[in-house]
Amino acid sequence: MSDKNLIIENAQVLKADGTVEETDILITGDKISKIGKVEKSGNATKIDGRGKFAVPGFVNAHTHASMTLLRSYSDDKPLMDWLQKDIWPIEEKMTAQDLYNGAALAAVEMIKSGTTAFADMYGPYMEEVAKVVEISGLRGILSRGLIGLFDGDKKLETNVELYKNWHGKADGRITVMFGPHAIYTCPPDYLKKVAAAAGRLGAEIHIHMNETRTEINDCIKNYGKRPFEVVEETGLFDCGTLAAHCVWIDDKEIEIIRKKNIRVAHNPGSNMKLASGIAPLKKLFENNVVVGVGTDGASSNNNLDVLEEIRLGSFLEKVSTLDLLAVPTFEALKMGTEYGAKAVGLHDTGKIEEGYKADIVLWDMSGVEWQPCYNPISLLVYSANSSSVDTVIVDGKILMEKRELKTLDEEKIIAEFKKSVNSLTGL
Amino acid sequence: MSDKNLIIENAQVLKADGTVEETDILITGDKISKIGKVEKSGNATKIDGRGKFAVPGFVNAHTHASMTLLRSYSDDKPLMDWLQKDIWPIEEKMTAQDLYNGAALAAVEMIKSGTTAFADMYGPYMEEVAKVVEISGLRGILSRGLIGLFDGDKKLETNVELYKNWHGKADGRITVMFGPHAIYTCPPDYLKKVAAAAGRLGAEIHIHMNETRTEINDCIKNYGKRPFEVVEETGLFDCGTLAAHCVWIDDKEIEIIRKKNIRVAHNPGSNMKLASGIAPLKKLFENNVVVGVGTDGASSNNNLDVLEEIRLGSFLEKVSTLDLLAVPTFEALKMGTEYGAKAVGLHDTGKIEEGYKADIVLWDMSGVEWQPCYNPISLLVYSANSSSVDTVIVDGKILMEKRELKTLDEEKIIAEFKKSVNSLTGL
Repeated sequence: MSDKNLIIENAQVLKADGTVEETDILITGDKISKIGKVEKSGNATKIDGRGKFAVPGFVNAHTHASMTLLRSYSDDKPLMDWLQKDIWPIEEKMTAQDLYNGAALAAVEMIKSGTTAFADMYGPYMEEVAKVVEISGLRGILSRGLIGLFDGDKKLETNVELYKNWHGKADGRITVMFGPHAIYTCPPDYLKKVAAAAGRLGAEIHIHMNETRTEINDCIKNYGKRPFEVVEETGLFDCGTLAAHCVWIDDKEIEIIRKKNIRVAHNPGSNMKLASGIAPLKKLFENNVVVGVGTDGASSNNNLDVLEEIRLGSFLEKVSTLDLLAVPTFEALKMGTEYGAKAVGLHDTGKIEEGYKADIVLWDMSGVEWQPCYNPISLLVYSANSSSVDTVIVDGKILMEKRELKTLDEEKIIAEFKKSVNSLTGL
Repeated sequence: MSDKNLIIENAQVLKADGTVEETDILITGDKISKIGKVEKSGNATKIDGRGKFAVPGFVNAHTHASMTLLRSYSDDKPLMDWLQKDIWPIEEKMTAQDLYNGAALAAVEMIKSGTTAFADMYGPYMEEVAKVVEISGLRGILSRGLIGLFDGDKKLETNVELYKNWHGKADGRITVMFGPHAIYTCPPDYLKKVAAAAGRLGAEIHIHMNETRTEINDCIKNYGKRPFEVVEETGLFDCGTLAAHCVWIDDKEIEIIRKKNIRVAHNPGSNMKLASGIAPLKKLFENNVVVGVGTDGASSNNNLDVLEEIRLGSFLEKVSTLDLLAVPTFEALKMGTEYGAKAVGLHDTGKIEEGYKADIVLWDMSGVEWQPCYNPISLLVYSANSSSVDTVIVDGKILMEKRELKTLDEEKIIAEFKKSVNSLTGL
């Protein structure tokens, strides 16, 4: 066996079919090569999995990592006021170093809460987020947030550059998408340009869709149609699309989502905290739409905890439909794993299965909130919190072991982050 | 200064008006005697509060502590199926020792997640829960869950005994209430008996009200009126009442709640997970109703984490009313502190204020989810999780310091708990 082998021994392994078995996981290079007892381990590195629940790493299907800089800066304000009066003026001042520092703190937070991949939209300076992905060992699906109203062409060019410089980099852990922000910041003609540029490169799209009622009403006023209809006509959806929020969608729009294989990033925490509305999750599932969960940025959520989104997604849909089985427990979990991976365009991650990427999180089941263990999936989805994350592996590489970070220096990152915060707001 | 003085130095102190000040808290005996710099500390015990957020201990306004024994045993089932087919048959088998072991595990979980008082309804053998309150140092508001349909009089007698033996005990940390389970398990004639027995002792009432639509429909079918109207006529509400759930309440019932000064235990997690419905929180606030939050039992939630209920309570009301300010951040927090204390009938706890009981939790603000700290209340309500609980003080006594339990032996409690689980279900 090669030095690159890693064995997780005697863990409670969550398999792709939802069964849980106490066994080993053999990792060869960046992939899971066997699930089952490994008899001859040779000189492989071993991880003691006893008392640990081995679950696919979480995928945060929609976030703005560097917005950690603005966590708790402004709460309880309507979306447009919040954006225009509080957020955008500070964002105007952000340097490349600030974006790096914000994303680095986010990387620490994500690893410590069991996230192994994240779909990020922000800008400018997305190359700084790419650098954080590179050194942290995380998987990043990165897009430049494109607001077409001002300097749209120039911004589009930076997304093209981001793609050319970073797509497929960091041992393939970086995917670059194009990030037209939303219909209310990107007129249809601009979306056509984005679609053309992305199409030329074979890149996919990450966009906010139908987040608030205001957005829908404005769209109908401006274009006489609903957002999905307007955007469909621009050709943008033909690139392959990750659509965040999708709260206020009607049946015609669900049909567009279905037809165009649009994947949805459901953001229950942000949608609840900002009182945006309740996305029709069950209806999306019934239409076989792929739905992942996202935290949104830390200034609207206010954290990057995917487990919380899984629980909120399940709870909110159960109570809003008054259907106890609207989101069965394992389906809820898959929004953070298998479905999340599909949503962000990762086709060989999100399951613990032979041949899949070794993106695995070990959850420590020793705490009282894991007792008794009749059903570990239920305990994860409904009882535990992310402080039970013990060990995080991405691409077969250990990013955290026994809660000790291996690729990032948390103390230094917090110190640098505080400098950025101070320069932006004086805190 | 006496040996019993305790000083928390240089903490970020959440004061009753919602301001946060870096200062000291002097605790004399079981009470907060000063908030402000303590110059002469004498031989007082000191706690280093630097980097800690000092917040009133959480009050869990409605739970069934020993139901930790059934956590993850049965999920995603309708309330009546779940109760009748899965829960009640196992509960039939529970011994006094089982109840003790379940409540002891719950006590560990509550202390570690920042809860200092809990309103518990269960039975038989509530004296076992009282013993756990006594040794753990927690504050307990205990009631015998009374199902009037079978052996109602005998059960009522055990609640009377519980009151006589335990009310005011454990240095005054135990309050005993009467616990008629619900209108669908306690006919009006039985509720009259409970009201009379409680009235004779001056005891208050803890009851489930209006949890599901089925319950309302059945009540109207059986009695021609809605639950609050039926119960009002029995005189039960004249004892002083803590009413759990209150999901499906109409304006006439809110008027009864207001008129009878009924305090509400809001259980968003349980109501969401069980798809029971959305309690009209904003409307209750508008009617000046005291609303605390409760976790409900760990088999319907599935944990005892009050911070989660605070967040869920806030999020759910914001999104269901589409009003971003439906529950402002500090109001949300107070459902777990000041309002929670009032809800369970504690009149000198729930605030960090001179003369109040020294029930204080120190939250460690060093983690990335607490960065940057523009607003610690926002960070607590929207970002942190209960693993940030560092130190827990009740009645001036330290129950946990730097996450180390001082009154309970966690390892032993888990071992005993597992024995009970095994004897009940074979796990």
